[in-house]
Amino acid sequence: MLDEARIIQQLKSAFPEAIGDDAAVIHSTSTELTLISKDLLIEHIHFNRRYISPQDLAYKCLQVNLSDIAAMGGTPTKVLLGIAIPPNYASELPTFITRFTESCQQAGITLIGGDTTRSTQDLCISITILGTVDPTQITYRHTAQPSNYFCVIGNLGYAHVGLQALESNTHCDERYTKALCRPQALITEAAWLAQQPGITAMMDISDGLTIDLSRLCEASKVSAHLNIEHLPQDLHFEQACQSLQLDPVMTQLCGGEDYGLLCTLDASQYPQISAEFRKKFTTPLLCLGQLQTKHPSCIQYFQHGTPISLTPKPFSHFGEL
Amino acid sequence: MLDEARIIQQLKSAFPEAIGDDAAVIHSTSTELTLISKDLLIEHIHFNRRYISPQDLAYKCLQVNLSDIAAMGGTPTKVLLGIAIPPNYASELPTFITRFTESCQQAGITLIGGDTTRSTQDLCISITILGTVDPTQITYRHTAQPSNYFCVIGNLGYAHVGLQALESNTHCDERYTKALCRPQALITEAAWLAQQPGITAMMDISDGLTIDLSRLCEASKVSAHLNIEHLPQDLHFEQACQSLQLDPVMTQLCGGEDYGLLCTLDASQYPQISAEFRKKFTTPLLCLGQLQTKHPSCIQYFQHGTPISLTPKPFSHFGEL
Repeated sequence: MLDEARIIQQLKSAFPEAIGDDAAVIHSTSTELTLISKDLLIEHIHFNRRYISPQDLAYKCLQVNLSDIAAMGGTPTKVLLGIAIPPNYASELPTFITRFTESCQQAGITLIGGDTTRSTQDLCISITILGTVDPTQITYRHTAQPSNYFCVIGNLGYAHVGLQALESNTHCDERYTKALCRPQALITEAAWLAQQPGITAMMDISDGLTIDLSRLCEASKVSAHLNIEHLPQDLHFEQACQSLQLDPVMTQLCGGEDYGLLCTLDASQYPQISAEFRKKFTTPLLCLGQLQTKHPSCIQYFQHGTPISLTPKPFSHFGEL
Repeated sequence: MLDEARIIQQLKSAFPEAIGDDAAVIHSTSTELTLISKDLLIEHIHFNRRYISPQDLAYKCLQVNLSDIAAMGGTPTKVLLGIAIPPNYASELPTFITRFTESCQQAGITLIGGDTTRSTQDLCISITILGTVDPTQITYRHTAQPSNYFCVIGNLGYAHVGLQALESNTHCDERYTKALCRPQALITEAAWLAQQPGITAMMDISDGLTIDLSRLCEASKVSAHLNIEHLPQDLHFEQACQSLQLDPVMTQLCGGEDYGLLCTLDASQYPQISAEFRKKFTTPLLCLGQLQTKHPSCIQYFQHGTPISLTPKPFSHFGEL
């Protein structure tokens, strides 16, 4: 049995200072930090060619990586593409490459290198992304404070509904399949948040809210009180979950690949920041609860003020180092 | 049929300035350039777990990447590890991780991040490496000049003999299997060469001499006269080739994964540089021929001054962007 936590622990024990956030800082001047991140996308683990087109796959690969730079408050600048190509992807490859380069150009980033190779069976994509950020605006995971509110942006669970529908050949609304196959990195939203002095920490939500919130809590040595009733109430989403025999709350808490944002902020500044955010982006900065001083369990769930017992079961593949 | 050249051409047409050398420059100051490179190592394409131990695989993954930084005259500094792990690698993974972190520490580089995930079948390793180089000492591929000598360092074809022996379960001397499974990046040698004013271009030899020399020629818009009789004459190697039904010259010209160095230099400075190199490293800087003004075919083969017709058939997997 593969144990992700053990692998990462083993790596962290050798390089304790070096691993933690969505991206790592590799170069710094007084006015600019250079960020780097890498993600693997492996066929049958992260995507299935049966239901993702080469165009969408190329777009998604890039967005997933842009999201890591966004989560640090940064601006993506350069990318390296590694791709291992099985023989039966030959006819789709030119389309993939065209869409990938177009997506880079649309995002204003330059492809600077990479590696191409064959694979025997599975399509494997490995992207390394670089970005820059103002040293005063970089956002980490380890800087959240007890009593901070924690907020999310993005449609929690949509991508998981899309995944389950596609995997089971069940019809669902396009909004869910699009959330899975064409996620959009929240670069502008993240950059704006990173500029607000009240924001204390940020990361992207890639492996599901509970996993990612736990990571933030561990990095910041805090715990979180999550108010279940603050999760979006969305009748259409609930119906989509029901038709797939998914629990809507568990799907919101555990569904992966949302590529939303999780941020923490000074509670007193939430009214102003959330109002400005909604005005600017016409989408809510949704407060789900408050951080607490460290407690053995990172996340405690509440419903209308009463602690409830929930044991969310992550659907996730592995995670980042 | 997958066509590597077409993929790279497609990428280069979108980003013409951006792709070319063993590593890309991502940041520059007046005293230091930051380099980046990435390589994929895919099971059944680049290695076979039947004959490479987790220790050797971890070591090799890093060396292959160190070699790219070395080829630019640089010093490796930081690394990101991406790994997609099939279920049946679980028991070997801790050994792999231990050896990988040890190898990083031995090389004086820091692991700063990456990505871990499952795969269904094949072990896929993706490494991104960073390094630094003095702007006056960086070595490219596009700067070789007609009339320059071109030289190699490393045992051409040894890794291919090792590969063929292991693939066919034929016994061979450990020097060949070690060349395949435990290649050693020539960081010190490359850094010394990069400091010599007479050196005009450099790259590593990863996909076989003919492929890599062709790349250098294309980048520099020159062609090469390669003197076959200057290839090392090594009775032991010839016997090893014969026992595997390999042609020794073709194996030297086309065998991949040597991770040697190919450099070009001002012909008048060859005597001095090669003498100093041999004294310092007790290994030859082997001159194989001279560059010429551009000719439609990048490499022309000569034997004792007479042009000969050779059509080396690369064994290589794909190559870098």
